[in-house]
Amino acid sequence: MTRSPLALPFPAIPTIAGVTPHVARAGYKPWDRADLTFVTLDEGTVVAGVTTQSKCPSPEVEWCRKALVLGRARALVVNAGNANAFTGARGRAAVEAIAARTAAHLGCQPSDIFVASTGVIGVPLPIDKAEAGLDAAFAAPAASWEEAADTIGTTDTFAKGATATAIVDGRTVTIGGIVKGSGMIAPDMATMLGFVFTDAAVEPGFLQDALAEANRDTFSCITVDSDTSTSDTVLVFATGQAGNRVLGDATDPGADAFRAALGDVCRQLAHLVVRDGEGATKFIRVDVEGADSDRSARTIAMSIANSPLVKTAIAGEDANWGRVVMAVGKAGEPAERDLLSIRFGGIEVAREGLVVEGYDEAPVAAHLKGQEIEIGVNLGLHEGRATVWTCDLTHGYISINADYRS
Amino acid sequence: MTRSPLALPFPAIPTIAGVTPHVARAGYKPWDRADLTFVTLDEGTVVAGVTTQSKCPSPEVEWCRKALVLGRARALVVNAGNANAFTGARGRAAVEAIAARTAAHLGCQPSDIFVASTGVIGVPLPIDKAEAGLDAAFAAPAASWEEAADTIGTTDTFAKGATATAIVDGRTVTIGGIVKGSGMIAPDMATMLGFVFTDAAVEPGFLQDALAEANRDTFSCITVDSDTSTSDTVLVFATGQAGNRVLGDATDPGADAFRAALGDVCRQLAHLVVRDGEGATKFIRVDVEGADSDRSARTIAMSIANSPLVKTAIAGEDANWGRVVMAVGKAGEPAERDLLSIRFGGIEVAREGLVVEGYDEAPVAAHLKGQEIEIGVNLGLHEGRATVWTCDLTHGYISINADYRS
Repeated sequence: MTRSPLALPFPAIPTIAGVTPHVARAGYKPWDRADLTFVTLDEGTVVAGVTTQSKCPSPEVEWCRKALVLGRARALVVNAGNANAFTGARGRAAVEAIAARTAAHLGCQPSDIFVASTGVIGVPLPIDKAEAGLDAAFAAPAASWEEAADTIGTTDTFAKGATATAIVDGRTVTIGGIVKGSGMIAPDMATMLGFVFTDAAVEPGFLQDALAEANRDTFSCITVDSDTSTSDTVLVFATGQAGNRVLGDATDPGADAFRAALGDVCRQLAHLVVRDGEGATKFIRVDVEGADSDRSARTIAMSIANSPLVKTAIAGEDANWGRVVMAVGKAGEPAERDLLSIRFGGIEVAREGLVVEGYDEAPVAAHLKGQEIEIGVNLGLHEGRATVWTCDLTHGYISINADYRS
Repeated sequence: MTRSPLALPFPAIPTIAGVTPHVARAGYKPWDRADLTFVTLDEGTVVAGVTTQSKCPSPEVEWCRKALVLGRARALVVNAGNANAFTGARGRAAVEAIAARTAAHLGCQPSDIFVASTGVIGVPLPIDKAEAGLDAAFAAPAASWEEAADTIGTTDTFAKGATATAIVDGRTVTIGGIVKGSGMIAPDMATMLGFVFTDAAVEPGFLQDALAEANRDTFSCITVDSDTSTSDTVLVFATGQAGNRVLGDATDPGADAFRAALGDVCRQLAHLVVRDGEGATKFIRVDVEGADSDRSARTIAMSIANSPLVKTAIAGEDANWGRVVMAVGKAGEPAERDLLSIRFGGIEVAREGLVVEGYDEAPVAAHLKGQEIEIGVNLGLHEGRATVWTCDLTHGYISINADYRS
């Protein structure tokens, strides 16, 4: 798989006290690479998570949802190469076996073990391979964050990580995260899985609220192809070893700093997924303002970001503002054609429902030749605003998803 | 433009009493073809219509909506090559000028004239070209239905028409229609415009109800790329010259036969649009049953039909039922993973949430090699059902929409 032209280098994520990643080879597919990630978490670790909106979630998602209620974690196990989705009782049994074996190894409850899988749909995860892989992982030395990021990947073309720090209660807390995904879901391989780790001391309820808020503006604001995986999962683990007074409420000192840093890591990770979008050659930011409400703005922004005609226009470096109008119109949200203005790269091309007087396409065309594209829409109605990110739709997407037999 | 591999030959549409098509060259683009269609309708013609759901409709759509309230028609004018959408007051003025000149020629009210345009967005329709084209059309001899179908087309790769008859009150009434469109909207050229003509005698309210019903199951159940034009319009004109007793109510004798024939023509026309879908190589029928309601079934069927991953899988002749599960799951409608069954070409591949015992891909693969693909989903919940039609997503779509500069 050719490295995405939009790839960024893997960042230097520091060690996070209480968190130790390991990788091993379970051999879920006949490939020469590690495909099982095992992250141990010291006692006292709390966890929060968000999972797919799909009505047909994988057994891993169902497992995590139940375990999240308890809010405690001792390990994360991630399988790459088999999503274990749509596999009935056998799939559920595989998740239970992984949690039981890991809990026995660590001397904790199975509900302390979080499991995620990504890859082929419809094939039960082979328990024997999972168990052999786990045994190898238990014995493996600590891995680097980049190795862990590589190991959770499937069709990803580059390892994706992000980090940030915040001062909380006079202590520096560190946040580091890894993510995989190169479509909202992809062929028979892929899903968005994101795992964030921090040494901050936080209560589970606070962490859940902070993640939900961060997710709303980051992972929930990206789209590659409008498709939604049965397995999408983002988990945040907090070991509490930074020594700060426990954050329990949004008004606690340092809570804002922590939430900002968590939001920053989630944003970086979300953008990296778009940058590895299947066939992507352009990273597109869509800003909508002047909408009836923020929710309305987001719906319109997503309508633009998911429009095949807008995405192919950007791929063709074509300042086709008519397609943006079309996407605004089809969103079904309040819009007044004759109040609408549209920008590419900050340059207004249409205002109040008409192309601007003396429109000069040259600077717009120059903007579209770059890799980072900005589409701006002002609806001229109220104060609602939203920003979402997507990539273009190219022959590469078709090649990855059609010129291929499972 | 290469003729779609899914094209069908143009049918023999009979003369419809009271309806006379003409074509002329307005020269909206520098091309060597007729691009203005002018259809005269005898006095006494009633009309019904449905228009785009877009919040940013063209001035033609706004014009037709107002004229439809009166329910009477004397002529239809269709401009190809310029959609006149997003053109402010100048666009509105062009529509008014066309209606006024045509009304003056026929000695009727401007509100008796229906206007539709398709093509470039954002460029006001040039009134001088429209007027010169109209004058030529007024003087032109009657054209064939196939000429009219060709003349309303833009990126269409073949002329599209359909016909049916019904016995109403002992008389044979004839229905004929033409349609254009090869995406829900396309580059800077295209929109779905459909025009149906009949000699049946009907009241406007009955005709509107019959069209709304037919539209719900036909034009509203097709999708090429999920994008919606600012100009989509379907109009039905009834001259009343068949001599039947006027149909005014759904319970009138012959009303069922008329509605069935109208539905048949609309279905044929809708399918032809899919068959000319940009880059299409497969005609896909999606049947959903066992859903919570018919509405829910339609939402799920559209989620499948609009999924880029499902559409690329079909393009790749890949029996990737996992992508169908994904599309069911993302629709947001009631679904139970473990009750779901999926068929390709009538062959069950997954049942109760699992791949079928002893699944043999060979007959499914053979089905997928054909041009007519059937995807079936049974949700196992209730009695809701829906059928929609779409096409595959191929390199051809990308080439048409991206490898092109406006």
